[in-house]
Order: sequence, then structure tokens, then C-alpha cells
Amino acid sequence: MGSSFGNIFKIHTYGESHGVALGVVIDGCPAGLAIDESFIQSELDRRKPGQSKITTQRKEADEFEIVSGVFEGKSTGTPISIIIRNGDQRSKDYSHIADKFRPSHADYTFQAKYGIRDYRGGGRSSARETVARVAAGAIAKLLLKHYGISCDAYVSQVGSLKLEKSYTELDLSEAENNIVRCPDSSLAEQMIALIDETRKNRDTIGGIITGVIKGTPAGLGEPVFDKLHAELGKAMLSINAVKGFEYGSGFEGVKLNGSDHNDAFYKEEEQIKTKTNLSGGIQGGISNGEDIYFNVAFKPVATIMQDQESINEAGEKVTVSGKGRHDPCVVPRAVPIVEAMSALVIADYLLISRSNRL
Amino acid sequence: MGSSFGNIFKIHTYGESHGVALGVVIDGCPAGLAIDESFIQSELDRRKPGQSKITTQRKEADEFEIVSGVFEGKSTGTPISIIIRNGDQRSKDYSHIADKFRPSHADYTFQAKYGIRDYRGGGRSSARETVARVAAGAIAKLLLKHYGISCDAYVSQVGSLKLEKSYTELDLSEAENNIVRCPDSSLAEQMIALIDETRKNRDTIGGIITGVIKGTPAGLGEPVFDKLHAELGKAMLSINAVKGFEYGSGFEGVKLNGSDHNDAFYKEEEQIKTKTNLSGGIQGGISNGEDIYFNVAFKPVATIMQDQESINEAGEKVTVSGKGRHDPCVVPRAVPIVEAMSALVIADYLLISRSNRL
Amino acid sequence: MGSSFGNIFKIHTYGESHGVALGVVIDGCPAGLAIDESFIQSELDRRKPGQSKITTQRKEADEFEIVSGVFEGKSTGTPISIIIRNGDQRSKDYSHIADKFRPSHADYTFQAKYGIRDYRGGGRSSARETVARVAAGAIAKLLLKHYGISCDAYVSQVGSLKLEKSYTELDLSEAENNIVRCPDSSLAEQMIALIDETRKNRDTIGGIITGVIKGTPAGLGEPVFDKLHAELGKAMLSINAVKGFEYGSGFEGVKLNGSDHNDAFYKEEEQIKTKTNLSGGIQGGISNGEDIYFNVAFKPVATIMQDQESINEAGEKVTVSGKGRHDPCVVPRAVPIVEAMSALVIADYLLISRSNRL
Amino acid sequence: MGSSFGNIFKIHTYGESHGVALGVVIDGCPAGLAIDESFIQSELDRRKPGQSKITTQRKEADEFEIVSGVFEGKSTGTPISIIIRNGDQRSKDYSHIADKFRPSHADYTFQAKYGIRDYRGGGRSSARETVARVAAGAIAKLLLKHYGISCDAYVSQVGSLKLEKSYTELDLSEAENNIVRCPDSSLAEQMIALIDETRKNRDTIGGIITGVIKGTPAGLGEPVFDKLHAELGKAMLSINAVKGFEYGSGFEGVKLNGSDHNDAFYKEEEQIKTKTNLSGGIQGGISNGEDIYFNVAFKPVATIMQDQESINEAGEKVTVSGKGRHDPCVVPRAVPIVEAMSALVIADYLLISRSNRL
Repeated sequence: MGSSFGNIFKIHTYGESHGVALGVVIDGCPAGLAIDESFIQSELDRRKPGQSKITTQRKEADEFEIVSGVFEGKSTGTPISIIIRNGDQRSKDYSHIADKFRPSHADYTFQAKYGIRDYRGGGRSSARETVARVAAGAIAKLLLKHYGISCDAYVSQVGSLKLEKSYTELDLSEAENNIVRCPDSSLAEQMIALIDETRKNRDTIGGIITGVIKGTPAGLGEPVFDKLHAELGKAMLSINAVKGFEYGSGFEGVKLNGSDHNDAFYKEEEQIKTKTNLSGGIQGGISNGEDIYFNVAFKPVATIMQDQESINEAGEKVTVSGKGRHDPCVVPRAVPIVEAMSALVIADYLLISRSNRL
Repeated sequence: MGSSFGNIFKIHTYGESHGVALGVVIDGCPAGLAIDESFIQSELDRRKPGQSKITTQRKEADEFEIVSGVFEGKSTGTPISIIIRNGDQRSKDYSHIADKFRPSHADYTFQAKYGIRDYRGGGRSSARETVARVAAGAIAKLLLKHYGISCDAYVSQVGSLKLEKSYTELDLSEAENNIVRCPDSSLAEQMIALIDETRKNRDTIGGIITGVIKGTPAGLGEPVFDKLHAELGKAMLSINAVKGFEYGSGFEGVKLNGSDHNDAFYKEEEQIKTKTNLSGGIQGGISNGEDIYFNVAFKPVATIMQDQESINEAGEKVTVSGKGRHDPCVVPRAVPIVEAMSALVIADYLLISRSNRL
Repeated sequence: MGSSFGNIFKIHTYGESHGVALGVVIDGCPAGLAIDESFIQSELDRRKPGQSKITTQRKEADEFEIVSGVFEGKSTGTPISIIIRNGDQRSKDYSHIADKFRPSHADYTFQAKYGIRDYRGGGRSSARETVARVAAGAIAKLLLKHYGISCDAYVSQVGSLKLEKSYTELDLSEAENNIVRCPDSSLAEQMIALIDETRKNRDTIGGIITGVIKGTPAGLGEPVFDKLHAELGKAMLSINAVKGFEYGSGFEGVKLNGSDHNDAFYKEEEQIKTKTNLSGGIQGGISNGEDIYFNVAFKPVATIMQDQESINEAGEKVTVSGKGRHDPCVVPRAVPIVEAMSALVIADYLLISRSNRL
Repeated sequence: MGSSFGNIFKIHTYGESHGVALGVVIDGCPAGLAIDESFIQSELDRRKPGQSKITTQRKEADEFEIVSGVFEGKSTGTPISIIIRNGDQRSKDYSHIADKFRPSHADYTFQAKYGIRDYRGGGRSSARETVARVAAGAIAKLLLKHYGISCDAYVSQVGSLKLEKSYTELDLSEAENNIVRCPDSSLAEQMIALIDETRKNRDTIGGIITGVIKGTPAGLGEPVFDKLHAELGKAMLSINAVKGFEYGSGFEGVKLNGSDHNDAFYKEEEQIKTKTNLSGGIQGGISNGEDIYFNVAFKPVATIMQDQESINEAGEKVTVSGKGRHDPCVVPRAVPIVEAMSALVIADYLLISRSNRL
């Protein structure tokens, strides 16, 4: 269990970090959608390793192949299967970690759960798995674009360097103009310097990504358990290294009084709006047509270039040595993943909402 | 959609705030579990309105009836249906809000979604719905108790009054000894005073609940999308008024370096443990046997005893007046709800894990 | 597991034969549907015991109560919960079968599965459970009526007495004019005589029900596993005592050549039709707009008024004596159940189909 | 929707007849199962076209590749993805049927549903899709073999040539000794002659496959909607060209009296058995440990080598000419498909049953 997401616009992913391939089957994409393959590739490129000096220097082509569900450039309503082959998974030597439990990785928990695991590069628990999410998310984004909905994200914090401005004060398109994907260029420089310094210290650091969804009609989201923000939260928390999710006023909002927190309704040109938006565009779990915004907290990457004490499968003390090429900070490459998961949630709820009324 | 939760231990709820009844159908409880009805009632009583001066003074008996699935005191493996009748839903006059959209409530979004809504007390969007969760959660707790697992929660923040100690430094059983359910008695007094003052100001205030799950075996949780903390996060975010969820190091953890954040493994008496627990008992989405702990942020209650500007269904400006008896702060009564949702998640994942291996 | 049916128009049932109540929660009925309570009651009455001399003489009121999801006579989009209380489940003495395994009943299999069972009247395995299906099916029928779709059924065989005419040669409304629900009045008389004779012999007999669905638009049904007839077949096979399902040409069709079996397309007044309909209105698992028709085979009722050899839980030889008042033939009362299950399938697939296209 | 099957042992398939590839993702196979690749290939070979003179003469290699979920020869508990590339899907000319609706095919219904379709060889509606089922079924069979359960099938009828013996009187292993897969060698010869003659007449013919499942423990199957035979029936009805399903006494059983139909229990060497088995190994939807047996009716293949009248997308009259190489009778190649679907159902229910009890 665990490799499926969504209800109507539903995805099923598979693949290990160093297996033959990763992929996704998308079942439930409405028929007739133009599938822009260059857009899918550009999204994969935003997530790709080796894209800048502050990401891992590993090289993976991340070229995809659509093997079903698209005919003459359009979705047919049947499952869209996308495969991304792993470039070179041969012969690489993982014997030094084969039976060791790397600290704060999933080696031990997979072993405890299954009694067997593909230890090469973390196997199924590797963040390499997110390549399939980004491919599926690209299809969801194309669907949402058709309906005038956008899902954007940017880096709003690295370590203690925090972007204090709200997304409403920023030009979000600036985020793609620097390698850390922060829309404030001067803070971006500081963030880049911090990540670079951390890397030189053979260490890693955490960060926060802010997501913004615009153009959502009022009425998306289901009462009680499948509230829109609950599903969005699950989507974000399912991304590797995520430790927290908040939307609208979030954790800070608990300090407020109701009289300051409530968003007053008004009508403008036949549209119902709210004067403030501490609700984060969602009330009672259902979108109200305002922007949806949220924060996602990522812990520092567990793989560090330092020796660490641990144990192996036999329970013996061992040293885990940092080797290979890894990300010193995950948030720059996680921006397209956050966007992809947002798009998958909204696409799904958009289709679900078609059954609301007679 | 939206009124079901879980995969194997699965619940389906129904009912409106001022309808005939609320209830839950639990499908998937293993056969042979002794169903302690007095325990279920005691859990409902912890959530019940009118239990102290800092909660709403409304009176609801919240008496339940089990109408199926239990035979001679034990679960039979068939659906357990529990009904809680609403005491007195007649004749109450809701005409003053029938067509008004109360600020930061779900009136507008339900109307936008369905084109019709039961406006009495918020209908399905009312927090009264959580009575069904607590009843189901009580059954889940009984199941978990059988396997030595406990799910506890307490209030760790009201407004800006924050409990700075970790749960490991506290006696959690103290939480039930005061009406705000904070295990630090002196802080509890301050919290009570703050809530009482807020109430007198005809206002409301937010807060944070911390949850702690002990006794979980290593191996619960599913890779990729259904990570244990992702499902736990969804469960918490689905509770009325929740704006955020974090587990382990959470949002603060983003500031750390990996070398400080990683939890070192060691072995003690045939058991694998970690020296620190910033992971929050979950690695790669799967429990590692350490305590699971998390925070849930609740916004201030939207219903305030003040006049507020808003609009009605026709789009006309109206005044929404605060009437009736409402909670000035939701967290004291939300403690058993957080526990119930934790228990439902763990019970479900415990059963799912039975299929891990040959 | 097992007590839920449907994907979008989804139902969850509960209740034991001699428990407190049976019921159903319908999640996913679109908002705005007028809920005609007298229609629901009339459907329940068609299934009710004691309605004629050829059914069981047990008396059950089968009065229902809607406790949620309906406001001012219309569905609100939230779960519709319907409860049917069992009239008199007290004190009845079941000690004579408490530990015996009745032949061809589910006593042994429930015991083998769960290690515990409510032995009173078969508990959850009793056909009394279908009262909840009929209540839910009535709501589904109301939804389908709104879209011009009807789901009818009638008895086409009792024992070896077979109605040789096709449904197209019959006036189906005649079925409700006799107690066996066969639209051919002279054959109906023979069937009634046969059932009556069987009853006098303290025995039981099987039969076949034919279902006919009219007004379905082309395009309902999902490729591959969730073909319309596959879901319809599952729905029928889930009814107590059903041993077989066939649609269109069915089992007889295997003898034909393709050149005789194929249905030729033609166009009439802007509508695409087929000259014959051996396909049974479904091609590739998707409705083509022609009538959907099918047969459902019911075995003879297992409870007979004769002594039978069996064993008890301890494995000892025992005699099971026929007692009480039971149906000598299940098909007359099963007609509304077949209709209800048809309606549930079509309602669900109608809503699913809303997501087919952009 | 529609391309997923199962609850815990769950499969997701994709692919079009003349697309790049077909495949399946199996999520929920327990970890530690030895994956015998040669067995998977042998199962695919049993379904492969061109295997004898009575099947289509098309050549497809049907070679598969496992790209995830297996490590060092064993399942790891993560999704097993299997891909079967289409040999030669280039340039073939389908222009003669591109806009025509072939009689009793899914061309029209797919067009009505989606407004677009991959017309090459039927696209997603082609029986070529079943190659993915057989691959997944092979994994399920390996799992069941581990627990001593077998799923076999054979041809019991072609046209009006019917095998009158019960499976208990036959040596089922004989079925693989002739090209029609009927365990009675003399009847097999007649069947082969009939199919051959039908082929020469440029026509097709239907048939019946009987399935037999042995070694199932008592207790598999879920009450009410997910009865074991209901899921089995859905599985069979989802196979291309299937028109009917019956198990145990089936349609013939309706003629019997209860006193003849009931299966008496007895105990033999600590095992509870029934003297007869008209129940077909399932009572109340739950297996009782006896053999499960059932019949599946297949209509004559719709593609015939004759000219047929039809219409095109524009509604104009057209002639559909029979071209290419097609099966004159589908049942010989459908035997491994019936087995595969049986195995998928039993594997899933076996895992589900692990949650029955404390």
C-alpha cells in the first residue's frame, strides 16, 4: 500500500532509486487534454539533480516516455503511463552500507517492516521517487491551466534566513531567476551563500517552501475528513523530509483573537470575496475562491559528509561514512515537487466537485 | 464524499449539528474485542459541552447507542454502528442567520458547493460532528490498548501562553486534573484565566494541542503517499479549526544542520533505539518504535459575541450578531478529538501492517 | 470490510437480523434531490415479509427514519443516514441453534472467519440485511428518475417454470399485479401454485429474476475492471442466495456464431441504435444507450422445515430442525432488491461519467 | 477509472493494443516472495497469440520486464512494475476503420464516452490488455502456491459441444495437453474441429471456461457486498467477451428444492467438510474450505472475416470488412486469464482475512 494518490484523478507510482526505472500511471485524466511533452520535460528539469552548484552534482537525464493513454497528442481518458528509466544503475558499489542503518534514513524502518530492502541509494524511500510525482503533476498542471488555475511555490526560508514578506507583496515569477528559487533576489543570495557554506562544512540544512494556488473556484473540498487543506496537507507531508504543514494563518494564528482572525465577506462585481484572507482560501475545508497559500517545512537532509555512529542489521556498532554527491539543502529542488502535489490535489478535487449537485 | 476515514479500520460518519442524530459506522474492527461501553461514554464526556466554565454552556447529553456489530459484549467483525441522538433540535430559531454568511464559517462555501445547506448551527460543518469521531476513536483506543499502545494529548499553548517543556519532562496524566487540560498546573491556571478574560471580552482565542503516541511497534506506515505522519497530519487537519500540523522537530527543525538533527541508532537489550528523537518516531513515513509526537494548531473560534459585517445569499450587506453559547477557545474540548483521530490512524495502520510479509 | 458499495454514490450498511437496528449511510448523493419518503416506504413494503401467502409470515413493520442529510425535503450533499429499527428482537429463543451449523447457511463460515458470531437469525448474514439496500436503492431510483432512467425487475423462473418470452414482449408493469411478481399472469398462477405446494412439502425452491434498465445514456461504464456489467454482476451476486448472473445473450450466447451475435449499428433521428441487442446494452463494458437486461439466479432457500443432519461447534453430530416462518421461495421478495442494486450501480456510474471529458 | 483491481493485493494496468507498451503495477504483494521469472513467462506464453492453428496467427513476443519491486529475486513489499512492450506498433494502416464503428465492439461506446479514441486495434478495449492481467496473475499464483492454493481452469464448452462431466471426474492436468485446453481428449478433438470449421467459414463461436480453486482455507470472503463469489464474478465479467458467471449449482440450481440443494456438514479428521458441494465452496460469501468452482460464458468474438453493415462517426452507412488475423474462438487463450483473475481475487482476500480477528 501507499503508492497511490487521489480519488478520481488518481496516480500510482513505482520504482526504486537504483532500480531499472521509475514511473507513474495516471488514471482519471479527462479525455481531450492536449499533452505538451516539452512542458513535462521542463518540469522534470526543474527537479533534476546537477542543475546548480547548490544541488547534488549527480547527473541524471530524467528523460521520460509516455507509453499509453495519449493518442495524437491528446489524452484519451485511459491510463497515462509515464516511465523514467534510471540512467546507470549497474554495478555501483553499495556494499559499504548494505547492512548499515543510516541515521534518520528509512533503512531501519524498511527492514523492520518488510524484513528485506533494496539498500541501493535508499531504494523506494529515496527522494528520487518524486520524479514520478513531478511527471504526473505536470499533467495535472496542464489540466488546471485549462481551467485558469495555477499552482506556484517558492523557497521562503533556509535555516534561519526567513523571507518576512507575504506572497502578496512578491513577484513570484522572480523565483525561477535564481538557483535557490526565492523570489526576493537579495535574500536569495544570502540563502545561496548559506547553503554553499553548509556544503563546505560537509553538513546540510533545512528550509521552508511556500505554496500559492490561484484561480480556484469556490466549492472545492469535501466536508469532514477530506477537507481540501487536509488532503493538501497529506500531499505535502508525503514528500520526503517534510516535518510540518500550515495554511492560512497557520501556527502564528493561534495567538490571535477571533475578532482579528475572521475574514469579512463583501461583494464586488458579482463576486463574493473576503477583505482579509487569514483563512487561506479555505473555510470548513472547502475553497472560497480566494488564494490558497501554505507553508511546508523540510528538515535538513539526513545524508551528511561526516562519519556517524550507528548500528547494522546484526545490531553491531558501525560507522556510517558520508560518501557520494548529495543535496546540502533540499528546498530548491523541492519547489516543483510542492507545485506538483498541489496540482494533483486540486485537479482531483475539481473532478470530485462535478458530483456536488443534480 | 468526505465522510469516511481509514483503509481497513474504516469509519463512516453522518449527521448535522441540529439534525435528528449523529453517528458513525466502524467497518473493520477485528472480531473478539471487548467493547467497554463505560469507556466510550467517558471519552464522549471529555468532549461534551458544558463541562466547565471555559467551554460553551450548552447542554447536550451525548448519550450513545450501539445498534450493531457487538454481541455479548464483544465485536463480531461486522460493522459497529453507534448513534448519538441530538437532544432537542426542535423549534430553535435560526431565522436570524438562515441566509447570512457568518465570517470565517463554512456557510458560504457550503452554499457555493451544494446550492443548499442546513444552516442550523452550521449543519454538517459544525464541530458537533466530532462526537462521532470520539465514539469511533474510543473503539480504536480499546483495540490499541489490547496491543499496548496509548494515544494521549494535552494543551500546550493558548494564545501566546506556551508550555516550553517537552512532553518527556511532563506527567501527562496531570492534564486531566484541570479544565484546560494542560499538564503544567501553574501554566494551566494562566491559560484558564486568559480564556476566561477572552470570553468576557466577547472574543475567542486559538491554541495548540500536543499529541503523544507510545508503544507503537517499528514498521507501521506505508511508503510514499501514505506515510504514517502524512495520514496523521491529514487526520488532524480534518478536525474543525485546525490550521497546522508538525511532528518531531517540526517547523523549528528547519533551522538545524543535519549533524544536529540526525538521530543516532543504538541497541539496548535486544531493542533498536535512537539516542535523540527529532524524527518524532517516524522515519521514511514508517514508525521506528520511538514515541511519536506532534503539534496541532487551532485557530480562534469564528463565532464571537460581537456584531460583524457580512453579506447574505442575495449579496446584501448584513450584520451578523453573536448569539448563543459558544466556546471561547476550542482546545480544551479538542484534546479527546486529537486522541481519537490518532487512535484511528494507528489502529488502521496496525491492521495494514499485517500484510507486509509472507 | 465488505459493507460498502459504490465509488461516488457510495453506501455503507450495518445491522444484524436480530440486533437493535439495520441501516445505511449514503455518501455522495448530489445536493438538491427531492426525497420522497412515501416512495422509500413503498419500496420497503415491496420487500417486507408477510406481504402474501407465498412469503414468510413473519411480521416486521420496516419503518424507516432519515436522521441526516435531508433538509426541508431535499438532499444537501452530505451523508443521508437511514435507520430501520428491528421491531422485537428481545428474548426470542435461539438456543436450539446457538452452536449448530445449519446446512448451506453462513453459520460455519462466519465462525471460521471471526471465531465469534451473532447466531440469532443468521446475524449479519441474514437476508434481513437487504432492507438497507432497498432503502438506499430508493434514493438511487429517485436520482435516476430525475434523469429519465428506470430500473425494473420481475420473476422469470420458479423451479422449472420458465417464462420463455423476452422482456420486450411483456408489459412489465403487470409484474406488480400478482404476488409472485411475474408479468405473465397465467404463468404467475402456476408459479404461485408451485411455491405453495413446495411450502406445504416443508421445502423450498429456487428461481430467476430478470432485470431491465431503460433510459441509460451511452457512455456509462469504465474500461477494463470496472465494466458496467462487471459491477452490475457483482451487485447481483452480492445478494443473498444468488448463484449466477448473465446479461444480454448470456450463457445461451456461447452457442452462437459471431455473424448471428453481432448487433448492427444504424442511425435513426440523430440517435445511434443497434438492430438487435444481444449485447444487452453494454459494449466493451460501456452502455450504448440500448436497454440493459440481465438474469439473476437464486438458489432454493437453505432453511427448510425438515430435520437435517449437521454438526455443532464442537464437531459433534446434531440435528437441525426447521422452525419458524421462512420464505419457501425468495424471488418474489427479491425483485425490489434486484432493482435497488441496479439503481445503485447506475447512479454511481452516472456520476463517475461526469469526469470523462474536459 | 476502471484500471485498478483489488484491495490489498492491488493491481493497476495500462496500455493500448497498438501503443508503445502494456503493463501492470502490483501494489501490496507481501515482501519475501521468490519471484520466478520463468513462471511468469510460461503463463504469458499460454495466453500468447499464434500458439496453435485455432488461435490468431498474429505474432507477439510478449516478453516482459520487471522494473521495480523485486530485489535479488524476491519481492520487497514495494510496487512491482511489469512492462510488456508492443513488438511492432509502427505504421500499420488502420485508416479503413478509423472512423467506423465495428459491430459489437467498443468503438462506439468509447467514442460516446470520451469523444476521442485510439482506434488502432481497439485501443484500450482490446483483449490485448489481458496480457497485463496474466503477468500480475502469475505473481498472485506464486503467492498462493506458497500457501498451498491452486487456481486452475479449462474449456468445458465450445458452441454446443459441452463437457457433461464435473471437474471432480476429470484429470485437469490433461487440459494443457491439447490446443483447446479441454481435459477430455476426445471432446477436445471435436472442439478443435468445430473451431477450425468456424474459422474456415470466416466466422467465430463462443464457449465456456470452468474454473476450479483448491486449497482455500475456510474464512475468505467478506460479508454483504464483497462476498467472495461476488468479487470473483466481477473479476470474470471484467474479462473481454464474458457474458455470464455462475458458481456452485449456478443457473441449474434454481430448479432444485432446498432439501436436495443443501450441503450436509460432517467432520473428518479434525476437518469440517460437506458431503455434497452445491454451494461451490462458498457460503454466505465466505469460503468453507471445499473446492470453489465456477463457469464463465464467453460470447463469439465480434471480429468476423465477413462484410458487415454499420455506420461511421458521421452517422453514414458504411461496410466493415473483416481483415487481419483474429481468434475464431476466444476460450483456449482465455484459460490462463480466468486463472489469473481467480488468483488475484484469492490472493487479495487471503491478505484481507488477516484482519479478521484480534
